Amino acid sequence: MKLLVWHLHITTSQQCCWSSAEALPLVEALKLSQDDTLVFPKSVPWIKYSGIHDGLHIHIVVPGKDAVLGVDNVGTVSGALVSYAAIQALQPDLLINAGTAGGFKAKGACVGDVFVATEVAYHDRRIPIPIFDKYGVGATKTIPTPKLVEALGLKLGKLSTGNSLDMSPQDEEVIKSNDATIKDMEGAAVAYVANLFSVPAILIKSVTDIIDGGRPTTEEFLENLSMAADALLKTGICVLKFLNGKSIADL
Amino acid sequence: MKLLVWHLHITTSQQCCWSSAEALPLVEALKLSQDDTLVFPKSVPWIKYSGIHDGLHIHIVVPGKDAVLGVDNVGTVSGALVSYAAIQALQPDLLINAGTAGGFKAKGACVGDVFVATEVAYHDRRIPIPIFDKYGVGATKTIPTPKLVEALGLKLGKLSTGNSLDMSPQDEEVIKSNDATIKDMEGAAVAYVANLFSVPAILIKSVTDIIDGGRPTTEEFLENLSMAADALLKTGICVLKFLNGKSIADL
Repeated sequence: MKLLVWHLHITTSQQCCWSSAEALPLVEALKLSQDDTLVFPKSVPWIKYSGIHDGLHIHIVVPGKDAVLGVDNVGTVSGALVSYAAIQALQPDLLINAGTAGGFKAKGACVGDVFVATEVAYHDRRIPIPIFDKYGVGATKTIPTPKLVEALGLKLGKLSTGNSLDMSPQDEEVIKSNDATIKDMEGAAVAYVANLFSVPAILIKSVTDIIDGGRPTTEEFLENLSMAADALLKTGICVLKFLNGKSIADL
Repeated sequence: MKLLVWHLHITTSQQCCWSSAEALPLVEALKLSQDDTLVFPKSVPWIKYSGIHDGLHIHIVVPGKDAVLGVDNVGTVSGALVSYAAIQALQPDLLINAGTAGGFKAKGACVGDVFVATEVAYHDRRIPIPIFDKYGVGATKTIPTPKLVEALGLKLGKLSTGNSLDMSPQDEEVIKSNDATIKDMEGAAVAYVANLFSVPAILIKSVTDIIDGGRPTTEEFLENLSMAADALLKTGICVLKFLNGKSIADL
């Protein structure tokens, strides 16, 4: 199986930002090599690491850093572009979008939980014209993975995506209407591109902060990023072991 | 000069939506032919029309329709993806992003005005972490085109981009901070991709509605779409005539 892992590069160090790709723990754990020059155009910041692990051809892509500001590229535009370029070049059998998310305690999320998204939608694309309103939300079911979820003890929930780390009252209204348990900044865009090419996608999100918990999102996010990254790393390795020798229908 | 026109396909008919690509008036006026199969992957909805007009190799790309809902693809994800694929395939000398926008009368915009954006930024990517906040806004200057603007009597103003047709109080705050005169749903994403590849980009936007005018945006947008499309068509043809025989430095 050829596997594409779209990874928001988060670090286990105590940096106050999403981290450097060099520290990507899953890349280190799998002993993958950087070889993005063979896949992406020269002028883009995206990075690819590849290798073979337990019979899986694994490609991990990360969106790299903004050339001007030096911070990591986040959000739907960057997420969609990297997904498009990587899927076009690699033609994967399965895409895994691994990253962090905020969670709603009212929907059963706790910090450190690792979720598999059962559905993705946007919450920051309000287009109040009939049919365009549905297009804006873009609700899409993901592939079912009941055996994977049971074997690894993961939680299930709907994911809502928007380009802001915070949540405005308008975002909140749409997130509630999306019935979302977790909230991220890339998932729906990555899933949209995977769907364009009929590539099965699994979205795995570890919870950094509780959005309805009373604490400021940014503070809690930065405090728990390291722990959530560890949880994501452990889950990532278990997912790869589980995938070994299986087809999509076995998940 | 090889010219890529990224066109939000708006119609001159009275349809209650962004229009069908078949009705794209600039394509008809220039007698261009559809030939997207040579450029885009089979499974994407994007459309390309090409031809030679007054010595210019013109490619017009439109983001096509959503496969499930049948409405035209709008917003930053679709805008960025089409731009990426088209720039990669066509290596244009210049990209023109032609489309509609809302305008602020407090900044001098009127319905039917055609603006050239002097700067682009986002208003729906709030990331309240130092440096990431600037990344979210993503303010970027466009190339100066003083001779083009003067010759065609166009207006100049800053453009702010977000994925919603409406404007939340949080959007409004960032739009004011961006000092924007016009507001659209794709411009900053198209310009971002053009900048990734150092392709000069001109953003030309005709105003469909006055955001600070007291009328609901959707109602005014739909009412004026036809007139704004006409204004955009006329300007588009004049821009192409002006470009004939000139280099980027002559604009």
